[in-house]
Amino acid sequence: MITVDAALSHLFALVEPLEIEEVPLAEAAGRILARDVTARRDQPPFSASAMDGYALRGDEATPGARFTVIGEAAAGHGFHRAANAGEAVRIFTGAPLPEGATRVIIQEDVTRDGDTITLGADIGTKDHIRPLGCDFRQGQSITAPRALRPADIALMASMNIASVPVRRKPQVALISTGDELVMPGEAPGPDQIIASNTFGLKALLEARGARARILPIARDTVASLTTAFGLAEGADLIITIGGASVGDHDLVGRVAGDLGMDRAFYKVAMRPGKPLMAGRMGGAAMVGLPGNPVSAMVCGQVFVAPMINKMLGLGEGPAPRRETVLAAPLPANGPREHYMRARLTDAGLIAEDKQDSSLLSILAHSDALLVRPPHDPARDAGETVAYLPI
Amino acid sequence: MITVDAALSHLFALVEPLEIEEVPLAEAAGRILARDVTARRDQPPFSASAMDGYALRGDEATPGARFTVIGEAAAGHGFHRAANAGEAVRIFTGAPLPEGATRVIIQEDVTRDGDTITLGADIGTKDHIRPLGCDFRQGQSITAPRALRPADIALMASMNIASVPVRRKPQVALISTGDELVMPGEAPGPDQIIASNTFGLKALLEARGARARILPIARDTVASLTTAFGLAEGADLIITIGGASVGDHDLVGRVAGDLGMDRAFYKVAMRPGKPLMAGRMGGAAMVGLPGNPVSAMVCGQVFVAPMINKMLGLGEGPAPRRETVLAAPLPANGPREHYMRARLTDAGLIAEDKQDSSLLSILAHSDALLVRPPHDPARDAGETVAYLPI
Repeated sequence: MITVDAALSHLFALVEPLEIEEVPLAEAAGRILARDVTARRDQPPFSASAMDGYALRGDEATPGARFTVIGEAAAGHGFHRAANAGEAVRIFTGAPLPEGATRVIIQEDVTRDGDTITLGADIGTKDHIRPLGCDFRQGQSITAPRALRPADIALMASMNIASVPVRRKPQVALISTGDELVMPGEAPGPDQIIASNTFGLKALLEARGARARILPIARDTVASLTTAFGLAEGADLIITIGGASVGDHDLVGRVAGDLGMDRAFYKVAMRPGKPLMAGRMGGAAMVGLPGNPVSAMVCGQVFVAPMINKMLGLGEGPAPRRETVLAAPLPANGPREHYMRARLTDAGLIAEDKQDSSLLSILAHSDALLVRPPHDPARDAGETVAYLPI
Repeated sequence: MITVDAALSHLFALVEPLEIEEVPLAEAAGRILARDVTARRDQPPFSASAMDGYALRGDEATPGARFTVIGEAAAGHGFHRAANAGEAVRIFTGAPLPEGATRVIIQEDVTRDGDTITLGADIGTKDHIRPLGCDFRQGQSITAPRALRPADIALMASMNIASVPVRRKPQVALISTGDELVMPGEAPGPDQIIASNTFGLKALLEARGARARILPIARDTVASLTTAFGLAEGADLIITIGGASVGDHDLVGRVAGDLGMDRAFYKVAMRPGKPLMAGRMGGAAMVGLPGNPVSAMVCGQVFVAPMINKMLGLGEGPAPRRETVLAAPLPANGPREHYMRARLTDAGLIAEDKQDSSLLSILAHSDALLVRPPHDPARDAGETVAYLPI
């Protein structure tokens, strides 16, 4: 058996960062920035008023001082003549500051009578000016790689970046295998169950930035599996679920081998989800996941999501963990890394009682996978543990 | 001035949960379940083997015992005759347990010679059986409302729920206003800047489950604003940005009023983002946000996202807060609720030094809005504070 990290190294060797494509800014949220982008201009591009009020020379701004209003500056429409001694310009938020003005007195601190204003007794000390470039300077960068959040999109707009270089979305083909499976909506025979892994994995991988398509279920025959692999054409990553161990009914590895896949089997020291098959087939990476529903989803989280990250240019790293405290004690762990379904509560993390890898209801009820290292000793409530949010 | 909670109450009164639509299961991830759904069957629908091995009568399972193998049960292909005394059935993971069998001995604990098997010296005590219905029973519910996660999708598949009742996505129309604005990709004049708020808000609201469209920039004229409102036709929620206060250049409220909007202005006791305008216009709710970029994004988070939640059937609640410790001390807060841009570090939350509402670069650099209640006293490092993740 190999460790989770060793298995991940094997899987990372199968994929490379995908090519870069340009998308319109309005479609870039959630995508992974692939190259640094730089501001095309200064922001603000001129010193601007931060308030509605009157722009004037700061050295003249004393309580009770009077000024003649010589014009008006609004956002989008500056006043293009200098404010000299004794002169003020009516100004609104975002308007360019007229030449000569070094301070804005807010309108609440001013009395206006015709074209004359008188400053109030308490005008404070703030200049209410946003200096040119105080947000960013032309050439300032947003560095790649970076998952683009709403504030990044707003910032790039402000930088006048209309088109954004991002990694192409990985195309994933999902094949579930087994005579026991039918698709949701079908009428299962007495020995059959409903295919659930492909649906769960599609949701999981698309939330990580992939595009996933669910192929028809492959039956336990060479012909059916061969057909399914054929339908995966064009995918960057082919995921099969079930039939990946070495038992009598595990045809997937054999058929994949016949189709030219240089495959390896990994017994990973983890629970749930021990057997993995992986290799390259034509232009695609291929990973065979175990068929137990919870094993498939945990392997999706622990192995496939990091592969997607690498394809998106986010480097080779394990699924990011968080830490919190245990709300209930845990017995010692065995020799395998254990990903326990658990719930986050105000008191901390509580592992579910039942951890059988067939129990999807428990997975749906959980919001974390508590990670127990191999041979982790018994833990008390209050101790800090690592988990993957799900 | 009114509190953030009071403003939220006014805004909640403008929207109702949207109608329910059915979507295919494969498209349901991230949507909000609108009605309880119930399992169409038991899972597993029969008692099933949890391992590859041999099914036999548990009362005969003693070390060294011998059995005659009378057939084979695979996933999808049960063995449909009873296992009697002295008989065993070769069985694979997921296969229905033959009648009479009450235990599975895993293949590693068995020696096979032709059609005879002999149990090993240590066969453990586990039965390796998944009882009928141990994951869920027919009629068991997933309760609405619920944001559907990957594990929910897998569970619904397993329950044979092929089509899912979810709330329709709110349609949001985003209008930025002001002569100073041009769209990203355009060449701004000397007094102009690039429209960024609509782009940031589109990303923010779509991440919350809305569909947002960016309308052309409305100029500071009645005709241009009237045209923009006309283009918002069909939206559930119209958001204008800028021109919502009561200054000389604030036409939006007037034009909206002329178009029949029963509008109210709210001075909210918060920083950033004081002035809000809100009302209903035709079939849509309308909210006017302040034009400063950071104010618009914070108001999107604090006011618009909860409105989207209500439309999605998630009830009337403020943006959910988390808690963590301060990594650096904070001075006392003033009379307004302050949403401070801050960074989450290993040592806790650190508020940014600069909090001017024009600084998008600081927002993009932050990952939290630290929430300071009105008149919150000075806080030391190590004290627990609330924040909104962004």
